[in-house]
Amino acid sequence: MKTFPYPMLNPPPFRWHRDEKVTEPKVHEWIHPLNIDGTSPFADDIDVAILGVPLSRSSISSSAASETPDAFRRAWRSFNPYHLEEEIDLTPLRVADFGDVRQHVTDISQCHSNIREAMASFRKHLPQTLPITIGGDHSITAMLVQGWKEAHPSERIGLLQLDTHYDLRPLEEFGPANGTPIRNLIESGTLRGSDVWNIGLHGFFNSRSLKKYADQVGVNGITLKEARKKGVPATIRHALSQLEKEVDTIYLTLDMDVLDLSSAPGTPAGMPGGMRTEELLEAMLIAGNHPKVKAMDIVCLDPRKDVGSVTVFTAVYAMLNFLVGVIKRGAA
Amino acid sequence: MKTFPYPMLNPPPFRWHRDEKVTEPKVHEWIHPLNIDGTSPFADDIDVAILGVPLSRSSISSSAASETPDAFRRAWRSFNPYHLEEEIDLTPLRVADFGDVRQHVTDISQCHSNIREAMASFRKHLPQTLPITIGGDHSITAMLVQGWKEAHPSERIGLLQLDTHYDLRPLEEFGPANGTPIRNLIESGTLRGSDVWNIGLHGFFNSRSLKKYADQVGVNGITLKEARKKGVPATIRHALSQLEKEVDTIYLTLDMDVLDLSSAPGTPAGMPGGMRTEELLEAMLIAGNHPKVKAMDIVCLDPRKDVGSVTVFTAVYAMLNFLVGVIKRGAA
Amino acid sequence: MKTFPYPMLNPPPFRWHRDEKVTEPKVHEWIHPLNIDGTSPFADDIDVAILGVPLSRSSISSSAASETPDAFRRAWRSFNPYHLEEEIDLTPLRVADFGDVRQHVTDISQCHSNIREAMASFRKHLPQTLPITIGGDHSITAMLVQGWKEAHPSERIGLLQLDTHYDLRPLEEFGPANGTPIRNLIESGTLRGSDVWNIGLHGFFNSRSLKKYADQVGVNGITLKEARKKGVPATIRHALSQLEKEVDTIYLTLDMDVLDLSSAPGTPAGMPGGMRTEELLEAMLIAGNHPKVKAMDIVCLDPRKDVGSVTVFTAVYAMLNFLVGVIKRGAA
Amino acid sequence: MKTFPYPMLNPPPFRWHRDEKVTEPKVHEWIHPLNIDGTSPFADDIDVAILGVPLSRSSISSSAASETPDAFRRAWRSFNPYHLEEEIDLTPLRVADFGDVRQHVTDISQCHSNIREAMASFRKHLPQTLPITIGGDHSITAMLVQGWKEAHPSERIGLLQLDTHYDLRPLEEFGPANGTPIRNLIESGTLRGSDVWNIGLHGFFNSRSLKKYADQVGVNGITLKEARKKGVPATIRHALSQLEKEVDTIYLTLDMDVLDLSSAPGTPAGMPGGMRTEELLEAMLIAGNHPKVKAMDIVCLDPRKDVGSVTVFTAVYAMLNFLVGVIKRGAA
Amino acid sequence: MKTFPYPMLNPPPFRWHRDEKVTEPKVHEWIHPLNIDGTSPFADDIDVAILGVPLSRSSISSSAASETPDAFRRAWRSFNPYHLEEEIDLTPLRVADFGDVRQHVTDISQCHSNIREAMASFRKHLPQTLPITIGGDHSITAMLVQGWKEAHPSERIGLLQLDTHYDLRPLEEFGPANGTPIRNLIESGTLRGSDVWNIGLHGFFNSRSLKKYADQVGVNGITLKEARKKGVPATIRHALSQLEKEVDTIYLTLDMDVLDLSSAPGTPAGMPGGMRTEELLEAMLIAGNHPKVKAMDIVCLDPRKDVGSVTVFTAVYAMLNFLVGVIKRGAA
Amino acid sequence: MKTFPYPMLNPPPFRWHRDEKVTEPKVHEWIHPLNIDGTSPFADDIDVAILGVPLSRSSISSSAASETPDAFRRAWRSFNPYHLEEEIDLTPLRVADFGDVRQHVTDISQCHSNIREAMASFRKHLPQTLPITIGGDHSITAMLVQGWKEAHPSERIGLLQLDTHYDLRPLEEFGPANGTPIRNLIESGTLRGSDVWNIGLHGFFNSRSLKKYADQVGVNGITLKEARKKGVPATIRHALSQLEKEVDTIYLTLDMDVLDLSSAPGTPAGMPGGMRTEELLEAMLIAGNHPKVKAMDIVCLDPRKDVGSVTVFTAVYAMLNFLVGVIKRGAA
Repeated sequence: MKTFPYPMLNPPPFRWHRDEKVTEPKVHEWIHPLNIDGTSPFADDIDVAILGVPLSRSSISSSAASETPDAFRRAWRSFNPYHLEEEIDLTPLRVADFGDVRQHVTDISQCHSNIREAMASFRKHLPQTLPITIGGDHSITAMLVQGWKEAHPSERIGLLQLDTHYDLRPLEEFGPANGTPIRNLIESGTLRGSDVWNIGLHGFFNSRSLKKYADQVGVNGITLKEARKKGVPATIRHALSQLEKEVDTIYLTLDMDVLDLSSAPGTPAGMPGGMRTEELLEAMLIAGNHPKVKAMDIVCLDPRKDVGSVTVFTAVYAMLNFLVGVIKRGAA
Repeated sequence: MKTFPYPMLNPPPFRWHRDEKVTEPKVHEWIHPLNIDGTSPFADDIDVAILGVPLSRSSISSSAASETPDAFRRAWRSFNPYHLEEEIDLTPLRVADFGDVRQHVTDISQCHSNIREAMASFRKHLPQTLPITIGGDHSITAMLVQGWKEAHPSERIGLLQLDTHYDLRPLEEFGPANGTPIRNLIESGTLRGSDVWNIGLHGFFNSRSLKKYADQVGVNGITLKEARKKGVPATIRHALSQLEKEVDTIYLTLDMDVLDLSSAPGTPAGMPGGMRTEELLEAMLIAGNHPKVKAMDIVCLDPRKDVGSVTVFTAVYAMLNFLVGVIKRGAA
Repeated sequence: MKTFPYPMLNPPPFRWHRDEKVTEPKVHEWIHPLNIDGTSPFADDIDVAILGVPLSRSSISSSAASETPDAFRRAWRSFNPYHLEEEIDLTPLRVADFGDVRQHVTDISQCHSNIREAMASFRKHLPQTLPITIGGDHSITAMLVQGWKEAHPSERIGLLQLDTHYDLRPLEEFGPANGTPIRNLIESGTLRGSDVWNIGLHGFFNSRSLKKYADQVGVNGITLKEARKKGVPATIRHALSQLEKEVDTIYLTLDMDVLDLSSAPGTPAGMPGGMRTEELLEAMLIAGNHPKVKAMDIVCLDPRKDVGSVTVFTAVYAMLNFLVGVIKRGAA
Repeated sequence: MKTFPYPMLNPPPFRWHRDEKVTEPKVHEWIHPLNIDGTSPFADDIDVAILGVPLSRSSISSSAASETPDAFRRAWRSFNPYHLEEEIDLTPLRVADFGDVRQHVTDISQCHSNIREAMASFRKHLPQTLPITIGGDHSITAMLVQGWKEAHPSERIGLLQLDTHYDLRPLEEFGPANGTPIRNLIESGTLRGSDVWNIGLHGFFNSRSLKKYADQVGVNGITLKEARKKGVPATIRHALSQLEKEVDTIYLTLDMDVLDLSSAPGTPAGMPGGMRTEELLEAMLIAGNHPKVKAMDIVCLDPRKDVGSVTVFTAVYAMLNFLVGVIKRGAA
Repeated sequence: MKTFPYPMLNPPPFRWHRDEKVTEPKVHEWIHPLNIDGTSPFADDIDVAILGVPLSRSSISSSAASETPDAFRRAWRSFNPYHLEEEIDLTPLRVADFGDVRQHVTDISQCHSNIREAMASFRKHLPQTLPITIGGDHSITAMLVQGWKEAHPSERIGLLQLDTHYDLRPLEEFGPANGTPIRNLIESGTLRGSDVWNIGLHGFFNSRSLKKYADQVGVNGITLKEARKKGVPATIRHALSQLEKEVDTIYLTLDMDVLDLSSAPGTPAGMPGGMRTEELLEAMLIAGNHPKVKAMDIVCLDPRKDVGSVTVFTAVYAMLNFLVGVIKRGAA
Repeated sequence: MKTFPYPMLNPPPFRWHRDEKVTEPKVHEWIHPLNIDGTSPFADDIDVAILGVPLSRSSISSSAASETPDAFRRAWRSFNPYHLEEEIDLTPLRVADFGDVRQHVTDISQCHSNIREAMASFRKHLPQTLPITIGGDHSITAMLVQGWKEAHPSERIGLLQLDTHYDLRPLEEFGPANGTPIRNLIESGTLRGSDVWNIGLHGFFNSRSLKKYADQVGVNGITLKEARKKGVPATIRHALSQLEKEVDTIYLTLDMDVLDLSSAPGTPAGMPGGMRTEELLEAMLIAGNHPKVKAMDIVCLDPRKDVGSVTVFTAVYAMLNFLVGVIKRGAA
C-alpha cells in the first residue's frame, strides 16, 4: 500500500471523531482524512480526493479565503451524504481528505509552485482519482490546471467556469493574482481561449478591454441573462456538449462570487444581480455527471465576510451535488 | 361570559397601548390580548386564537425559538391588517392573543404535557375557534396534535407540513425533540403516515434511513424540485385535495427552515437551496383558504440568529396571509 | 463657461484621485465632481447631473438615509462603466457630480425649500441635463418634482414609482414626511393621481383607507403579484406606454424598499415579499431607455442597516443600468 | 384625584403584564405606567415621573435615539429594584411612567415646544415629583430646562453635565440641535455659564473656539484627566458642593457619549478615551443623593448602534443608581 | 493501563492534528484527548482532566452555552502553553481532554444524573487528577459538587464562586436550573452556606429576598465594590484563607457573567458594572495556586452571543492562568 | 520648490473637500494631501509626513490591515485638531499626507523593497520631516527601519515597541512576515537587541523559545503587569530615558494588538488581558514629546474586524496624541 508523503501537503488540521459503530455516517464521518502515517484509508482505491489550498495572499482585494478549507471541514458536519431528491447515497464513493497544500507566509511564488506540483504529483500517483480543490482565491486555478497539464502534457484541457468575472486581467500588472488565472492559462499555452466557457458574467464588473480580449482569444463568455433564456441548466449542458467535442478533460472552476451577493455574502468581490443558489446547485449536478469533467475547484469564498455560514453551506452543498453527478455517471 | 383561567396559560407578557379613537387599527391594535381578568374581549365569539409556546429546550441544536412568541408580538406592530393585493380587511376576524403556555425551566416533560393539555382544553371550551400556535421548536407540534386528538378522539387528522426535514427521527434516541414530532404522531397512533404531506424537502438534510422509514409508513414527501415542476401553489392545492378526501381535520405546520437560509437566516437548522419567500406566502394563502385546515403552527424560528428581523417579519406575513385565506372561506 | 455657484449646493465632500494616464476609467474616475471653482468639467455640456440630498430627518421611522449620497460615492468605485451584457460603454456620457443640496440641522422646512429650489434652478440653468438625485428619504421626491414644475410650469408630469408603499398618507398628520410625498404632489396640483404609476405594492403595508384614497384620485397601483403575471419588465413597459400618451415628462422614483428585505436589508421600512434584484435591474434598463423619462431619484436606503453593502451596491447598479438605458436612447 | 390629560403626552406604547400576586416585583412591575384613563396609579403622590422624549431629528449626526424610551421600557425588565451593594429597595419610591412627549414628523420646532410645555406643565401640576427624562438627543435638554424655568421663573438653575462635548456650538449655524443646548440655555438667559459644570471632556472632540467660548462664559469644564486626579466621584461631589452654594435647583444631564466607546458602543458620537462604566455608575449614586438635584435626563443613546444592549443596560443601571441616591436622601 | 470507558462520556468531537516533530507545542498540541480506545495518553498519571458538559437546556434565559466546550477546543489553538509574565511553562502538566459528558435532548434529569455520576466515577478512578469542567450553564455546578461529595462523603467542601448572581433561587419554582445551584447544594446538605464565598455581586441583579436568604444561610457574599476596596486579588486570598480553615476541598466555580458585559459580551445574563478582565485573570492565578482548590468549572458562556470570540478567549485565558497557579503549587 | 515624484508612492486615493473659508479646520481639512502635481502644499517645510502602507499579504493570520490607511483618512474627519486637556492646537504643525507606498498584488518582496526605498528616499529628501506610517501589518516595520538605516547608516537606532508579542519569530520559517520584524532588524544588524524596549507583553501569546531568544539578544521585554506597577506612563518614560542614553534615533512602533481585545476588537491577533485605551493614549503623548523619537508607525489594525470603528478611532486618537507630544517639544 502506497503512502502519500507528498512533501507539499500538510495533513488536515483537525479530524472529527468517528464512531465506528455508526452505520449511517454524516458527511464528516464519511469523508476520510488520510491516516496519520500518510497512507490512505482506502489503500489506493480513492475515488475522490479533497485538497485544501489555504492561499488568499494573491487576492487583489482583501480576502480570508485562506480559511475556507477549514470552514468546509467544519461545515460538512451539518450535511448528510444522502441526496433526497436524487435518492443517491454518496457513501459508496471513497473520498479522502488529503489536507492542505503547504503555503508560505511571504513567498507567494513558492505557494504557487507548491500548488502546481501538488496537482502534478497527485495526477501521477493517483490517476484514477478525481481531485476537488477547496481554495483559496482564484489564482490557484491557474496553478492547478498547469499542474494537471504537467502530468498529462498531451491532453487538451477545457475549462467550465462559473464566475461573475472574466479573470483575464493582464499578468504584467498583477502577476499570478486572482484576477488573472484564465489569461495566465491561455498565455502560457496551457489551454486555448476557445476551450474556456465562462457562465454567469453580468453587469458592470468587467472592463471593456477585458471583453475585447476575451473575444479576441475566443473565450465563450455567456452572460447570466443569456444563460437564463434557456435556463442555466440547459446552458451548462450546452457548454459541456461543445467542450466534449474538443477536449480530453474538462476542468470545472466555481468562483463563489458568481452568486448574487444577497445569497452569498461571503465572497470578496460578490455583487448583486448574480446567479441564484438553486441555479448553481442544479448546474453542479449536471457538471458532475459529465464523464469528461475530471477535476473541480471552488474558490473566492471568504468565511469571515459570511453571514450565518450561508455561503459556506452553499459551497459544500454545491460540492456534494457535484459528487451526486459523479456517482450517477456509473449508473448512466 | 366565560373566563379562560386555563391553569396552563400565562397572559401575554406585554400589551400595546390601544388608542380607542383609532378607526383603522394596525395589527397590534386589532389582535386583542385576553382581558386582565381572563375574559375574552369578544365574549365567546372568538374566530382565531393565538397561543405562544415559548419552548426550545427540546431543540436538538441550540435555539432561541422560545423568544419567538414575543418577537411576533413586537413585529406585528409593523403590519397593517389590510391585504392590498387581495383587497381583504382582516379586522372583521375576532383574533385573541391568549398568551403563552406555561413552561418549566427544567422539566421538559411537564412543558410538553402543558402544551398537550392547553390544546385539548382549548378545543373543549372553544370548539369554534381556530388556534394558531407560535412556537417554540418543532417538538411542540406532536403535543398540539395529540391535544387536538384528545379533544376530538374520533376525528381523523391529516398533516400539511412545510419543512426541509422529515422530522421522523427515532424517539428512542432523542425523546420528544424537534427532530421527532411526526414519528411521534405516527407511532402514537395519532395520525397515519399516509395522512402526512410534507412539502419542501431537499438536498442532504435527511438520512437515507429516514427516507426509507417515510416510505414505509406512507408519508407523502414532496421535494422542492418536484413541487416546483407544477409550482408550489399547485402542489399545495394537490396535497390539500388529497388530504380532504381522507381526513376530518388538516393541521398545518410550518417549519421556518423550509425557507432558503439567505431569505430566512433566523432558523436553527436552515440551509441554502430552500423555498423562496414568495412561494411560502402564496402557499399560506391557499392553505388558509381550505375549510378543513383548522389549526396551524409556526415553529423553529430563532429570533437571535435573525438578521434585521427578516425571518420574523416573514413568519408574521405568513400567518396573516393564512388569515386572509381563512376570511375568504366565507366569501368562497 | 458657466459656473454653478448655486447657493444651495455643497460640493461633494470628497473626491477620488483621478489618474490622468488611465485610459479605461472605473466609475469613480468617470463621474466628475464639479471643479473646486464651481465650474463644470464639461463646460455646459453635461448629460447627467448627480445631486445628493442628505436628508432623512423627515423620515417617519429612524433612518440614516442622509448618509446615502456619500455611500454611493464610495460604492461606485467598485463598478466599471462598461455593461457587459448590453455591450455598452457609459463613458461617452458626461456625468457630473454636483455635490449635495445644503441641509439644515433643525429646520426641515428650510431643507425642503433648498431641495425644491435646487431642482428649479437646476432646470433653468441646465435644461439639457438629466438630473439623478440620490436621497435621502422619500419626502424629497415631492420637493424635487415641485422644483421641476416650478421651472416648467406648463409641463404635465407623470410619475413612475417603484415602491412597496403608496406614500399617500395625509399631510395634515405627518407634514411633508417620507409617507406623504405623492399625496403632496397630487394635492398641491403638481401632478394628477392618474398620472402616477406605482409598481411593486404588496401585502400588509398600506392601510385600506390609503387604497381607497389611491382609487379615488386614480393612482395606478400595480401590485407585485399583478406585475409578475406578465413580468415586471413588461409591466414597466406598459406603464410607460400609458404615461407617454398623457404627460410631457416622466419622473422615475425608486424607493429601495420595493425590494425584498432579504435582498435589500438596508432600508428603513423594507419587508419580505418584495421585488427581486434582477426584476429591479431590468426595470431600470427599460425606464432609462424611455425618452420621456427625464429625471430620476433613488430614496430610502439606509446604509447603516445594510449588510455587506448589498443594498448600496444594488442601488448603484440600478442607477448605472438606468444610464445604460439613457445612452441607448440615442442608438434606438 | 387628578387626571393627567396633558395634551402633549402620549401614553407608554406598551405595558408589561403585572401579576398582582407577585410580592417582589421586577423593575417593570414596579414602575407604573399611567392608567388608561390618564389618572396616576398613586393618585397625586408621585415621587418620580419618567417621561420619554423620542426625538432625534435634531441630532447633527444620524441617530436612532428616538427609539431609546422604548428600549428603556424593554430593558428594565432585566433589572431588580433592589440594589445589593447599597442594600436599598427602590420599591417604596412611587415611580410613574408618563409615556412620551408627542413629536411631529417634520416640525422640529413643534417637537421642541411640546417638550418645553410638557416640563412646564408638569412642574405646575406635580411640583413634588422629580422628573426623569429619557431622550432623544441632547437638544431636548435646552427645552426641558427652559420648561422648568418657565414654571419656576425665580429659581436659579445649575447644570451638572456628564459629557464628552461642550454642546456649546453656535445656534445661528445649527439651530436648537444636539450640539447647541447649553449655549442655548446660556444665551437665552435660562442659566449662567458659571452654573454649568461639565465633567468628562477629553481629547479632540471640541474645537478651540468652543473652549474659548466656554471660558468666556465661565462654564466649568472638567476634563476626564483632571477628574481622575482625585477620582470621578470626588469631582462630582466637588461640583455639587460648588453648585449648591449658588443655585436653587441642579439639573443633571447625562450624555451617554461621556462613556468610552468600547463600553458604550450605542451612541451616535461616542469616542474611545471616555469614562469607564464604574465611574459613571458611582457618579450617578452621588448625584442622585444631592437634595438640590431635582431633575435628570439621559440623552444621545442610539439603541440601533448598540452591541448586545450594553449601552441601554448601562443607562438603565445609571438611572436606577440615581434613584438609589434619591431614596437615600431621606435616610441621610 | 486503565482504560476509561465511562459510559457517560463521549470522546472529544474533534482532535487537532499533532505534529510529532514539534518541540514546542501550542496549547492544542499539548492538551491530549483520550486515545480512541479510551486509554489515556499518560497512562494513569493525569494531572488535570478536562470535561465538557454541553448542557444549556437548564438555563433560565436562552443560552447556547452547550456549544462552549467545542468553542474552547477551537480557541485554545490560539494560545501558547507558556506564561510570559510568570515565566511558567505549562507543558510538564499532563492534561487530558476526556471529551463531553453525554447529554439527552429532552431529559434534563438524565443529563444531570450523568454529570453527577461522571464526576463521582471520575473521582473514584482518578483521585489524583484535578478536574476542570467546561459548561454548560450554572446548573451543572450543583451536579458536579454532588458527584464529588458522593465520591468523598466525609469531605467538607467549600465553594469559591465568582459571579454577578447568588444563584440561590428557590428550587421548587425552577428545579435544578442555572439560577438555583448554590441553593441546591445547601439544601441538599452538600455544603454549608457559610462555606460559600461569592465574589463579584453588584447592582440590581439579585432580589432582596435572595439577599435575605443568603444572609440567613450564612453565604459570604462579597460585592465587587467591597472587593475593590482592598483589591480583587487580596479579596480572593482572604476568602481562600477563611475557607482553608474550615473545609477539606475548595471548589472554584467561575460564572463568566461576573465580568462586565462590555468585556464579556458572550454571556446570557451579563450586565455592565462587572469585574474587569485583568481582575479576573489575577484571581485565577491566585485560586489555582491554593492547594485546597481541587476542582474548577467555567459556566454560562454563550459563544453565539460573543463578539469576535473575546469572551471565549478570556475564559481560556482564565483556565490557563488557573493552571499556572496549579503548577506553581509544587514550586511554592 | 521640490516636487515629490517618488516612483514608489501612489497619491492618497481620495481627498476631502476643503472649504477655504473655514477658519477652524477639522483634522481632514488640516492634514494636506500632496498636490496633484506631486508638490507639497507647504513647499519643503513639512513637519510631519503621513505615509500609508496598504500591505497585509505578509500577515500570518488573515488580515485586512491593508485597508487601514484609507480607514484612517475617513476616520480623522471625526476629530478636531485641538486637544482640550492639553490646550494644544495642532494646526500649526504642517502635516502632509503623501499617499500610499505602491504595492504589488503577488510579489511581497517587491512590496517590501518599495517600503524600504520609500523611507530611505524620504529621509534623504526631507530630513527635517517626521514620518508617520500607517500600516499594514507589522512586517513593514522591519522595512521602514531598514530604510531609515540606509539613509542614516551611522545612526544608532532604538525601538520603542508597544505590543502583545515579541515579533521575534525565526525568519527562516516565516520570511519577512508580521511575526518576525524585530528579529529581522536584529539579525540584519540594523539595531541591537538591547536597544529594543517592548512594553505590553502578557500571558500566553509568546512561546518559551521566543522569550529565551529575547533574553539572549538583550531585548527589554516589559510585561504589562510590570509596567502597571509604576504605571504605563512612567514605564514609557523609563524606557525612553534608557534609550536616549544609547541611541541617536528612537523609532516608535505601535502594534494595535497591544490593547485589550474588548477595547480594540479590530486587530487580527488581539487578545483579552491587554492594555487599556487610556494607558495607550497617555503613552503616546509621552513618546511624542521625546526629542529623539523621530519616526512612528501604527500597524496590525484590521478595519473589517472592527466594531463600530472603535479601533480605528483609537488609532487615530493615538496618532494625534503623539503629535500633541511633538508640538510640545518646542514648548518644553
